[in-house]
Parts: sequence; structure tokens; C-alpha cells
Amino acid sequence: MAERLPQNPLSFKAGETILRPSASVPPYRVYRVLSGFVRILCTDDNGDVLVLRHVAPGGYFGEESLLGARRHYHAEAVLPTRIAPVDARKLNAAEAGGLAAYLVAAIGQTHTAIKRISSQRLRNRLAAALVELAESPLAQRDSRGQVVVRVTHDELAAIIGSVRETATKAIGELVRLGLVKSGYGRLRLLDLNELRRLANSCE
Amino acid sequence: MAERLPQNPLSFKAGETILRPSASVPPYRVYRVLSGFVRILCTDDNGDVLVLRHVAPGGYFGEESLLGARRHYHAEAVLPTRIAPVDARKLNAAEAGGLAAYLVAAIGQTHTAIKRISSQRLRNRLAAALVELAESPLAQRDSRGQVVVRVTHDELAAIIGSVRETATKAIGELVRLGLVKSGYGRLRLLDLNELRRLANSCE
Repeated sequence: MAERLPQNPLSFKAGETILRPSASVPPYRVYRVLSGFVRILCTDDNGDVLVLRHVAPGGYFGEESLLGARRHYHAEAVLPTRIAPVDARKLNAAEAGGLAAYLVAAIGQTHTAIKRISSQRLRNRLAAALVELAESPLAQRDSRGQVVVRVTHDELAAIIGSVRETATKAIGELVRLGLVKSGYGRLRLLDLNELRRLANSCE
Repeated sequence: MAERLPQNPLSFKAGETILRPSASVPPYRVYRVLSGFVRILCTDDNGDVLVLRHVAPGGYFGEESLLGARRHYHAEAVLPTRIAPVDARKLNAAEAGGLAAYLVAAIGQTHTAIKRISSQRLRNRLAAALVELAESPLAQRDSRGQVVVRVTHDELAAIIGSVRETATKAIGELVRLGLVKSGYGRLRLLDLNELRRLANSCE
């Protein structure tokens, strides 16, 4: 089950674009995230960003190359990130199994995003986004054991399918409910159980 | 590349539930759609339905069994449907490739759903839903070459993440714009190009 060392890893700074939408995608070229955190996003006519999914270390993006389909999204490093380009035809059995497992997990993640974004109440959407980020590389535990998520209001807006002003209002609601504490570029989650309850609008 | 004949296919009537959410999922048991059309959905506390994706013939559902994860969704036949339970460990190379390709396509479909549902304007959401359904087994061409989609207002509401009353209003807007004509349990798409333009709010 040993995985081979990646060939030619590529490094990106936080905020750097890794891939852009493209009609011609190299066949079977997928990218494995070695470290950091990647967001898969699209932008609308107003330049507003919408996150389609996040990819943590061990995950992949560029999967459209397996179908020879065009790429409709941007991939962007959220944290300093290392990735490895991989030829999907040359994966060994364990690696191919890992890619398949990631694809299944990604479907689950996008299902969750559909539920989150369809939720009518913005504060429930936001709670769901924070519950997901609490399990991501953006989360750290502080000395009191509380989860602190490194995320800006802009980034949260892109995850809940809204704009910054609206995200800021929803964050204010969660602050007033005593569920989160807002800091510069980070949010402290004070009551993860109650956030989970708010998040579960759809089983 | 020959595919084996399916073992023990199962038949469902339109509207019948195929799978329910479950904490214990048989390992590696996936379901291939042989004919018909399946919707993967969840329901919220009010009983409102939200479609997570559709599965056309050749596609699969039950993929969470590959991860040993719980099932969070219902699978329901939209049309009279035949499916085959498949042990993913026993697929031959061509079939395993077909499953992987389906998983990639499903990620693309759910990305599209995220874009659709996050669109602020309901009529754009609806246009995007109709453009997708125009390529599905629910669509037929009539003698004039126009696409007729067999879909109720309830079903459209579940796809755009809304309720029937709101879906009906949005359909009325598209009717007044001359883009669709509403019939009993079906919609005639009068201007697919303009619907596509409305649908593309996010690249």
C-alpha cells in the first residue's frame, strides 16, 4: 500500500491562483494536494466568488481531465500549499483507490454545500459553513481547547453564496447568540454543539 | 470492454422510494441505473424536498458504501426505473472505469447545482434547472422540434431549493418572457438559447 513520493511538487502562496477555467485540459492530469488547503471556486459577472468545494491534503482536483471535459472553475491556495501533478493512468492500485475514495468524499462535500446554500436562513448557512471549517486545515485549537478558524468575512461569503456585507450581518447574529467571537481574520467557535444544531436544517 | 449483464435488476414505479437515509450501509454496494431516472434528495424539518443530484441510465448511486459512510439521502424513482445492485469490488476494469467516470461527472453536476442554487434571482435558477433537465430522460422533442420537459412545479421547487408557490411564480415570469409554456405536469421550452443565457450567472 506504499505510496510513491510525488514527482515535481509545485508550491503556491496563500491567495495564489493554481488553475483557471480552460477549454483544453491535459488528459488524465489530476492534482493531489500534499499540504495546505485549496478552494475550488467560480466567479459571477459581478466578480463575486462562490466556493464549490475545498480540497484538503490527500484530496485531488482537476478531475474533469478524466472525462476530457472543460474546466469550469478556478483553483486557489487558501493556505501556503504544495500540490503534485499526477497522471491518473499511472497510479498504482492503492493510489487509484485513494483517488476513487476522494471522488466519493467530494460528492458528499458538494451535497452538503447544496443543503447549506439552499437553507433559507443565512445564520444557519453560516453555522453549517463554520461546522465544516472546524474540521479543516483552517481550524486550530487554542490553549482553552476552543476551535479558532482562520477565515475572513469575504471567504465566508463565498462559501455561503452571498456577499461580504450580508456575511458580516450573519456573523453578528451568531456573535449576539454567544456562539462565536469575531477577531481579525479569524472566528472563535464558542459553542460548536449549538452551531451543529443550527447547521442541520436538512438531514 | 464488454459489460456483463446485470444480476437481479430491481424495478420501481415513478415516485417510489428506492433508498432511505441509513447509518448502516452494505459495504461496496452501489446501484447502477439501467433505465428511467432517479433523484437523490434530502428533506428538511418542514418536509420540503431538496434535490442533490439526478442519476440517468449508466449512472450510479450508493457511492457512500465505498467509504463505509452513512447515507444521508433518499433515492427516488422519477420515472419507471430499473436498477442493478453491484458489488464495487467485483467490477471488471471497464466497469470500474465507468464508475470512476460517473463519480467525476457527478461532482460536475453537483458543482452546477451549487452555482444554480446560489444564484440570487429565482428565474435564473429556474432557467438553469430547465437547461439541465432538457438533457435528461425527462425531456422529449415534440413534432415541432421543441423540447418538452415532464416536471411538476413541486419537482422544480425541489431542484431550485425553494417551495412550490415560489417556483410557480418564477415559472410565471419565464412564461411572461415568452421562454416557456406551462402545461399539466410539463413545460415546453420555447427559447432554449435565452434560457441558457439566463442560466449562466457563474461561468
